[in-house]
Amino acid sequence: MRIEGRHYRSIWPSEDGRGVLVIDQTKLPFAFALKRLETMTEAAEAIRSMVVRGAPLIGATAAYGVALAMRVDPSDDHLAHAIATLGATRPTAVNLHWALQRMGRVLRAVSSSEREERAFAEAAFICDEDVDCCRAIGEHGARIIAQIAARKDARPVNILTHCNAGWLATVDWGTALAPIYRAHDQGINVHVWVDETRPRSQGAALTAFELGAHGVPHTVIVDNAGGHLMQEGEVDLCIVGSDRTAANGDVANKIGTYLKALAAHDNGVPFYVALPFSTIDWSIADGVRDIPIEERAAREVTHMTGRAEDGALHTIEVVAPGSLAANPAFDVTPARLITGLITERGVAPASREGLLSLYPERAAA
Amino acid sequence: MRIEGRHYRSIWPSEDGRGVLVIDQTKLPFAFALKRLETMTEAAEAIRSMVVRGAPLIGATAAYGVALAMRVDPSDDHLAHAIATLGATRPTAVNLHWALQRMGRVLRAVSSSEREERAFAEAAFICDEDVDCCRAIGEHGARIIAQIAARKDARPVNILTHCNAGWLATVDWGTALAPIYRAHDQGINVHVWVDETRPRSQGAALTAFELGAHGVPHTVIVDNAGGHLMQEGEVDLCIVGSDRTAANGDVANKIGTYLKALAAHDNGVPFYVALPFSTIDWSIADGVRDIPIEERAAREVTHMTGRAEDGALHTIEVVAPGSLAANPAFDVTPARLITGLITERGVAPASREGLLSLYPERAAA
Repeated sequence: MRIEGRHYRSIWPSEDGRGVLVIDQTKLPFAFALKRLETMTEAAEAIRSMVVRGAPLIGATAAYGVALAMRVDPSDDHLAHAIATLGATRPTAVNLHWALQRMGRVLRAVSSSEREERAFAEAAFICDEDVDCCRAIGEHGARIIAQIAARKDARPVNILTHCNAGWLATVDWGTALAPIYRAHDQGINVHVWVDETRPRSQGAALTAFELGAHGVPHTVIVDNAGGHLMQEGEVDLCIVGSDRTAANGDVANKIGTYLKALAAHDNGVPFYVALPFSTIDWSIADGVRDIPIEERAAREVTHMTGRAEDGALHTIEVVAPGSLAANPAFDVTPARLITGLITERGVAPASREGLLSLYPERAAA
Repeated sequence: MRIEGRHYRSIWPSEDGRGVLVIDQTKLPFAFALKRLETMTEAAEAIRSMVVRGAPLIGATAAYGVALAMRVDPSDDHLAHAIATLGATRPTAVNLHWALQRMGRVLRAVSSSEREERAFAEAAFICDEDVDCCRAIGEHGARIIAQIAARKDARPVNILTHCNAGWLATVDWGTALAPIYRAHDQGINVHVWVDETRPRSQGAALTAFELGAHGVPHTVIVDNAGGHLMQEGEVDLCIVGSDRTAANGDVANKIGTYLKALAAHDNGVPFYVALPFSTIDWSIADGVRDIPIEERAAREVTHMTGRAEDGALHTIEVVAPGSLAANPAFDVTPARLITGLITERGVAPASREGLLSLYPERAAA
């Protein structure tokens, strides 16, 4: 993606080969700052503190975290330690474990002297693969948008999205936003309703920033507003991302996604989930029952950070003093509420059969 | 309600008889400040700027606004002007128009020399009637909570509420919170999930403040979280208020109510709406189609105010600079998603028949 005329990915190795650079997403949208990760511990902390976030980018960062660990000590023990440490950072996004398992498999197959180079190469490969997946998701999803546009006589196609599943959540392009970027670039008149996405406001902070930088028309709304807009006919389709997709098509995504899926279903609005294969957890047969949901700090609910009139970032209390807060970070949308899954291989129903139609090699597994 | 040992209503005439005192709700929860309204224009501005809010309190404030106008000039023209000015402050809450019509009817029936005294008396009567209604709503609703408590073996009854329909939204007791206060005072183990209620955060600011002051256990959650909690069996019932109830049982309430009603329906959680008769708009046959929805300033979405570490209130920007925002303030929950309406006369299904069973005198109308 382009920021002020320059192309960026959300993660890349530094030129000196000794670190990894990421965009510090806790500083957006008010500052665009890079952060250099030099050790596995720093990579783990970047994931935990959400300097980087978004299921695909978490996977990519974990892969580079293993590479940084191999630069210091390529032993079997240290490899196991790195995988365990990085794997404990966040519980819901399955790409994390997918990337770590892949790194472990590749690195255990080579001698320790080869591991550093092999690890950086594999992490780069994971990143390139994610970009390819997201580009393909964009192509498949843009066709859905084009079909709706054809019925709208040049009036904008209104698309609602929740949280940030854009290029900042992946290595480039995004999942849910990739079809929107592609459609916009093709000249289709799109307008995006951006859910604020409390408590961390990734919609208002990151999705609005991304869409603004790319010139895509959009309007930020509070998370409460989407149902009303659907009742009023102001939403033509919803596209969201996924942190983990169960084998039955249930989708864990940012808290509140389920509410929008219910509203879409109640109003006959198509509800799509865009995801690369790496978010599918074939080991989970029932997502609503079995996907673990991260509980994050209450302070994310009770406090907010933003830019004050003096131009500096301030953190303010927004809950009555003394009141407790709870902060489940994800919910699971049952497959029955999902119109279709958009993956790098195409679009399929959110069901075991639908997923197997795209990934037939899994039927034998 | 008691605040630090002293009993308060949310509005009352000043001792010198020349003004009306209200609690400045824009300062809560960080400061408990009274505001004196001395003119009709100040009363109108207090409603518009949400110094006072909540459908019943808006009605009571409008009634006192008419009384303040009569003190200055009790002519027919000025009465009509006061009713028109106050009636234009906010579009969705029907109590506003109900109270103004009532004041107009009463005052036009007496000579101008009697109007000031009569107006203050009628405004006081409207306030007392609201307190009685809310107390009765509390009794009827507490029986529903007691029935659920009987199945829970002393484990807490978990009640989700949205926005603030407590004593701050009425003259005393509240609508949705009245049954909770009553049940708590009866010794029933209740715990309240308090929806933050963006953009103005009346849940996190006002409901949490009220419940904390009364000692009711509660936990603040973002508006996105309620559906997940229902999926997990963590919500036993929902109770919300109403800004306008159509004759068919459709309910306009704070934006996002509809999403919670959908989630309750999807998970078999009872969803009740508590309201006094004054929020029923018998002239509206189809609430989803015909209740007007207020669009408020985008700045309520793009900025937030809270207490910074220095103890002072600060306003911060929370949306990407340059992005637009939309701010519909209410949505309409279709009657089919509502388990029952709790009014001062008892509990009935959300339907024309249900409402007429409580208000049979309306069947002839």
